[in-house]
Amino acid sequence: MREAMMQAKVGDDVFEEDETVNALEAKLCRMFNMDAALYCPSGTMTNQIAIKCFTNPMDEVICDQTAHVYRYEGGGIAYNSLASVRLLHGERGILTTELIEPEINEENIHYPNSSLVVLENTVNKGGGACYKLDQIAPIHTLCSIKGLKLHLDGARLFNALIATGDKAKDYGQYFDGISICLSKGLGAPVGSVLLASKETIKKARKIRKVLGGGMRQAGFLAAAGIYALDHHVERLKTDHAHAKVIAKTLSELSWVNAVMPVETNIIIFQVKPKYEAVEVVRKLTEKGILCNTTNRDTIRFVTHLDISTEMVDRAIEILLHLYP
Amino acid sequence: MREAMMQAKVGDDVFEEDETVNALEAKLCRMFNMDAALYCPSGTMTNQIAIKCFTNPMDEVICDQTAHVYRYEGGGIAYNSLASVRLLHGERGILTTELIEPEINEENIHYPNSSLVVLENTVNKGGGACYKLDQIAPIHTLCSIKGLKLHLDGARLFNALIATGDKAKDYGQYFDGISICLSKGLGAPVGSVLLASKETIKKARKIRKVLGGGMRQAGFLAAAGIYALDHHVERLKTDHAHAKVIAKTLSELSWVNAVMPVETNIIIFQVKPKYEAVEVVRKLTEKGILCNTTNRDTIRFVTHLDISTEMVDRAIEILLHLYP
Amino acid sequence: MREAMMQAKVGDDVFEEDETVNALEAKLCRMFNMDAALYCPSGTMTNQIAIKCFTNPMDEVICDQTAHVYRYEGGGIAYNSLASVRLLHGERGILTTELIEPEINEENIHYPNSSLVVLENTVNKGGGACYKLDQIAPIHTLCSIKGLKLHLDGARLFNALIATGDKAKDYGQYFDGISICLSKGLGAPVGSVLLASKETIKKARKIRKVLGGGMRQAGFLAAAGIYALDHHVERLKTDHAHAKVIAKTLSELSWVNAVMPVETNIIIFQVKPKYEAVEVVRKLTEKGILCNTTNRDTIRFVTHLDISTEMVDRAIEILLHLYP
Amino acid sequence: MREAMMQAKVGDDVFEEDETVNALEAKLCRMFNMDAALYCPSGTMTNQIAIKCFTNPMDEVICDQTAHVYRYEGGGIAYNSLASVRLLHGERGILTTELIEPEINEENIHYPNSSLVVLENTVNKGGGACYKLDQIAPIHTLCSIKGLKLHLDGARLFNALIATGDKAKDYGQYFDGISICLSKGLGAPVGSVLLASKETIKKARKIRKVLGGGMRQAGFLAAAGIYALDHHVERLKTDHAHAKVIAKTLSELSWVNAVMPVETNIIIFQVKPKYEAVEVVRKLTEKGILCNTTNRDTIRFVTHLDISTEMVDRAIEILLHLYP
Repeated sequence: MREAMMQAKVGDDVFEEDETVNALEAKLCRMFNMDAALYCPSGTMTNQIAIKCFTNPMDEVICDQTAHVYRYEGGGIAYNSLASVRLLHGERGILTTELIEPEINEENIHYPNSSLVVLENTVNKGGGACYKLDQIAPIHTLCSIKGLKLHLDGARLFNALIATGDKAKDYGQYFDGISICLSKGLGAPVGSVLLASKETIKKARKIRKVLGGGMRQAGFLAAAGIYALDHHVERLKTDHAHAKVIAKTLSELSWVNAVMPVETNIIIFQVKPKYEAVEVVRKLTEKGILCNTTNRDTIRFVTHLDISTEMVDRAIEILLHLYP
Repeated sequence: MREAMMQAKVGDDVFEEDETVNALEAKLCRMFNMDAALYCPSGTMTNQIAIKCFTNPMDEVICDQTAHVYRYEGGGIAYNSLASVRLLHGERGILTTELIEPEINEENIHYPNSSLVVLENTVNKGGGACYKLDQIAPIHTLCSIKGLKLHLDGARLFNALIATGDKAKDYGQYFDGISICLSKGLGAPVGSVLLASKETIKKARKIRKVLGGGMRQAGFLAAAGIYALDHHVERLKTDHAHAKVIAKTLSELSWVNAVMPVETNIIIFQVKPKYEAVEVVRKLTEKGILCNTTNRDTIRFVTHLDISTEMVDRAIEILLHLYP
Repeated sequence: MREAMMQAKVGDDVFEEDETVNALEAKLCRMFNMDAALYCPSGTMTNQIAIKCFTNPMDEVICDQTAHVYRYEGGGIAYNSLASVRLLHGERGILTTELIEPEINEENIHYPNSSLVVLENTVNKGGGACYKLDQIAPIHTLCSIKGLKLHLDGARLFNALIATGDKAKDYGQYFDGISICLSKGLGAPVGSVLLASKETIKKARKIRKVLGGGMRQAGFLAAAGIYALDHHVERLKTDHAHAKVIAKTLSELSWVNAVMPVETNIIIFQVKPKYEAVEVVRKLTEKGILCNTTNRDTIRFVTHLDISTEMVDRAIEILLHLYP
Repeated sequence: MREAMMQAKVGDDVFEEDETVNALEAKLCRMFNMDAALYCPSGTMTNQIAIKCFTNPMDEVICDQTAHVYRYEGGGIAYNSLASVRLLHGERGILTTELIEPEINEENIHYPNSSLVVLENTVNKGGGACYKLDQIAPIHTLCSIKGLKLHLDGARLFNALIATGDKAKDYGQYFDGISICLSKGLGAPVGSVLLASKETIKKARKIRKVLGGGMRQAGFLAAAGIYALDHHVERLKTDHAHAKVIAKTLSELSWVNAVMPVETNIIIFQVKPKYEAVEVVRKLTEKGILCNTTNRDTIRFVTHLDISTEMVDRAIEILLHLYP
C-alpha cells in the first residue's frame, strides 16, 4: 500500500485536479452505482456533510439512539446542521418502517420538520449487526412517500456486503447519500468518500471547503484507498471467521454472561455480575489483547487485517485461562 | 385585568425604562428569591434564552423525551443553541438523579459536553405530574457536583406550588434559571419571565435583542401579568378540584381504559381499543368540550380560569352520555 | 389608542385565532399589495426572520455598511441565519445597482453565495435619506436577473412615503419581504409586521415560533397598530416640517459645522472641532432636549408625535442660546 | 519528500497516537515558542477552528476587508462561529491600532461583542505585504487591554519571516493563535498547523473532531510537513528574488500600468485600460505562465519551489514579447 501511495499522481483536489482522488471517486461511483463522489478526511466529515446537505436548520434527523452520527460525532448534527434528532430504539440498532413512520412529524409550527433518516450498516453499537437490502428497500419507499431523504453511514458497509452477500451495485438506488470509510476495516490510513447525486456533491464540495476539509495533494491518501478497495475487501471474510471463533470461545467461558450474535467483525459480550468490564479489559490489555468496554458490564472486540489467525489462536488461549 | 392594563405606566423596555415591566420583574424576583428577571413575549423564548445562556455550541442538554423544550419548541435547542440532546424516559416525565447521572458524558472529543439539565414542572405530557422540592434538591446537588446548570421550565409552576404546598421562595436556591408563564393558567394575555442571576440576565437581555424579543412599551402586557399574579394564583385550587372531579367520572366510563393520576389541572386518559381518540375528540368538540388527543388512544383535558363549576357539571353530564 | 386597545377582540395568535392581529395583518397586505403578513414583537424580529427566510447558512447578504440589520441587531445575520455580509458604502446609505452588481459573488466554493439584498427606507444612519421607487425598481430588476431576493427594512417607511409621495400600493411588486414598524414614528407601543408571499410567511411563522416570538392574545397590541395606521400616518408631515425648521436653525449656529440634508424626521449634524458631541448632548439633555451622538462629532435629533410645535419652538430657543 | 513520507511512523492521530504528527506539532511549538499545536487538513480549518475557539456566537471578528478568513473561506466566520465581522481598510491589507481601536464595540445590547482581531501575514490580497513584528506588538497590546484575542493567519508566514528578518521564536508572545500552512509555499502536499495555548488546543481538538478533520494515520502527511520545514524555508529567498526580477520587468512594459511593491513571492500588477486582465491571463496561460486575475484590471503571479530560475528567465522573455 505504501508503494501505491508513493507512486500516486497528485494535483490540487480543491480545484478537482488530483487525478488519483478523481480515480478513487469514480471507482466508488461505479461500484455503488451512484453519480458523484467526494473524498474527505474522515467518516465524521462525510456523515456531517451529508446531514447538512439533506437538512435545513430546524429540521429533524431520525436515527437509532446508538447511531454514530448522534453519539460519536461530538454533537455535530446540532452544531453543523442546527438540526434536531428523533431517536429510535432499534433491535441491535436496526431500524424498520414500523419504528420510523410514527416518528415522522406532521406539519406543525411546534415541531421540527422531519427531513432525513440515517441508517448505519453495520451497526457499530449493535455489535456489527447488518441490514440486508430487503430490509432497506421498504425504508427507502417510506422515505420517498413522506419526502424524507435517506442517508447510509457505511463506515463498515463492506463488512455488511461480505456478510449478507448483497451487491454494492444495488445500494445506489436506495440512498440519497452513502458514506464509505477507507480506513478502519479496509486498512487505508485516512479518508472516507461521500456518494450522492451530482447536485448533492456540488453542495457537499462547498460545505467541505467551509469546514476546512478541502485538501490539496490528497492523491497520496486516495491511492491507499484504491489499493484497499482492490486488495482488502474479500479478506474481510477472514475477519468475520475470526470473530465467530472468538465468540464461540467466549460463550463457553465461566465469567461471560452472554455474547451478542456475531454477524461480522465485531464481538460484544457481557461479563457476569461479579466481574467488572473495566477490570477485565485491563487484564486483557496487559496480556496483549486490545479491546474496550462499551458499558459497565460489556466488552467489545474487533477483528481486522492486522489480526492473523495465529493471533486469534493466541487470544483464545489467553481468554481460556484469564480467570480460573 | 383590562383595567389594570389601561392604567399601566409604560416606557421603553429595550432601554429598561418601562416601569411596569420593571415592577413585574422585581415582583417575581422577590417571590422566587432570585436576583434578576427578564420579561419576554413567550415561554418558548424564556426557555430558549435560558438554554442559550447555559450552553455553548456542541454542548448537550439532558431532559425528558417528552419535554416541551425538546418536543414543542420547533427544534430550538439545536437551532438557537447548536446543542445536542440526551433524552431520558422519566416516569410521567419526572427525572431523578438515577436517570440523569449515567447520561452525563465523560470528557471525550467524541461526545458533546453535558452542560445543562432541564426539568419541567408540572410536566405537561406527564399529565400535570409535579416535582416536589425534595425531589429537586438532589438533582440540584448532582448538577452542582458535575458542573451542569439546572433550568426549570415553569410554564405551569404555580399549579405545582398549589398542588404540593411547596413555597415559591424556596425555588431560587435550586435553579440557575426559572421560566415562568403568565399566560395559560394565570390568564394574562402575553408573556413569560426568565429568572436567573444578574450575570445570566445580562446575557439573556442581549440574546432577547438578537432574537427580536425586545419590546418597547411592553408595560401594557406586564400590567396584566402583575394582575394575574395578584389575583389568579390561589384560584388554581379550583381548577385542580375540577380536574379531579372530571377524572373520577372518566374512570367510571365504559369507553375509558385508564386515567392518569390527576395532580393539577391536566387530565390525560386512554380510550378503549374499539374507540378512536380522534373520533371521541370530534364528538366532544361538537358538544362544546374543547380538548385534544395526545396520542392515538389518549385524550387531554385542561381546566382553567374560564371553566366554571357549572361548566364542569355540564361536561360531566356530556361525558356520561357520550356513548351508550 | 389605549381605548382601541382595551376594546380589542383577542384570541390565540399562535393558532392564528386572534382576530385583531389578523385584521392588522390583512390591512397592511392591502395597503402594500402583498399576499401575507406576520405580526411580531419587534422590527428586529421581522428583519431577522426575513433574512432567515431569504438565505441559507453560508449565504451572503448585501447591504449598506450602516444598515440597521448589520449594525444594530446584535450580529443577528450571523447568529440567526449563519450568513455572511458584503458591506457597501452608499451615499447616505442609499444603494444603487452600480454599487451592488460588482459585489454579487460568482459561483465558487471559496465564496459565500450572494442571495439577498437589504435596503433600508428611510436610512437611519443616512439621516433619514429616502429611496424613491424609481431608484428601487432597477435594484429589483438586478436582483431578479441574478436570482437574489430583495428585502426592505421599512422601519421608517411611512416617513419615506410621506416625503416622496410614492404610494404604498406600488411597493409590493418590488420586494420579497417588507418589514414595517408600528412603534417609533407611528406611535404604537409594540410591534412590527413582516409582509411577503404566502409561502414565505408560512416559513416565517415557524421561525417566529422557534425564536419565541409567538404571542398569545397579541390583539391588544395589534389594536394599537391599527389605530396608528388610521391616525398617525398623515401627521408625519408635521414631524418632517419640524425637522426642517430645526435643521435651518442648526445650520446658522456658530458651533455647528454642517447639517445633513433633512428629508424626513431625522436631523444629523456635526459640531465644530472645538466642541465635543458628547458634551453638547449632555447640555441639551439638561435643558430637556433628548438626543444622542452618532459619532464623536455628530448628533442626531428625531421629531415624532410627542413633539409639538411649541416644543420645537422652545428647542430652537435653547439651541440659539446654548453657546454664546 | 516522498521518501520521508514513506518512512513515516504512523498511529491514530484521533487518539493522539501518531508519532510523526506529534513530532511535527512539537517542532512548530518550539519554533514559534508556543505551548501546543494541532495538525489539520487545511489552513481554512486551522483558521476556522481558531475563530471558533476565540469567539462565541454573536461576537464580532475584526479583520481587513480583503482577509482570507472573510473572503475565501466560504463565509465560515458566520457559518462555523455564528460571528459577525467588522471590516477594515488597511493599506495593502495591513492593520494598525489606529484602524482597529475605533471599531471595537462598546458594550451595548445592540452591538455584537468585539472579541477577536485577525491579521494575515503576508497579506495575500495586499500583494504579499508583510507585517514586521514591531507593527504587531502595539496591536497585541491594544487587544490585551481591550480583552480581545489576536489570531494570525500565517498561511505565508515563512515568507514574511524571510523578508523581514523577524524571528519565528518571537511570534508566540504576541498571538493567541497562529495558523501555519505547510502546503503552498513550503511545498508539502497537505496540511496546516494551529499553534496556541494548551487550553485552546484542547478546545480546538474537539472542534476538529466535530468538523470531521480528525484523520487517523496522518503521519504520512505530517512527515512531508517536517521535511518542508527542514528543507524548504531558506529557499523562499529564491522565490522572493525571482518575484523582484519579474516585477522589475513588468514595471517597464508598455501595457502595464502599475506594479504593487513586491516584498515576498507575490506580484500583483495592473494592466492599462485598453487591456483586459482576463484576456492577458488567457494569453499568458497559453504560453505556459499560470497566473490569475484578482480584479478586472489586475493580475497576480506567484513564485514558488517549482519555479526555477530558468523558468523565470523564460517567463521574462514571454512577458517582453507578449504585446508589440
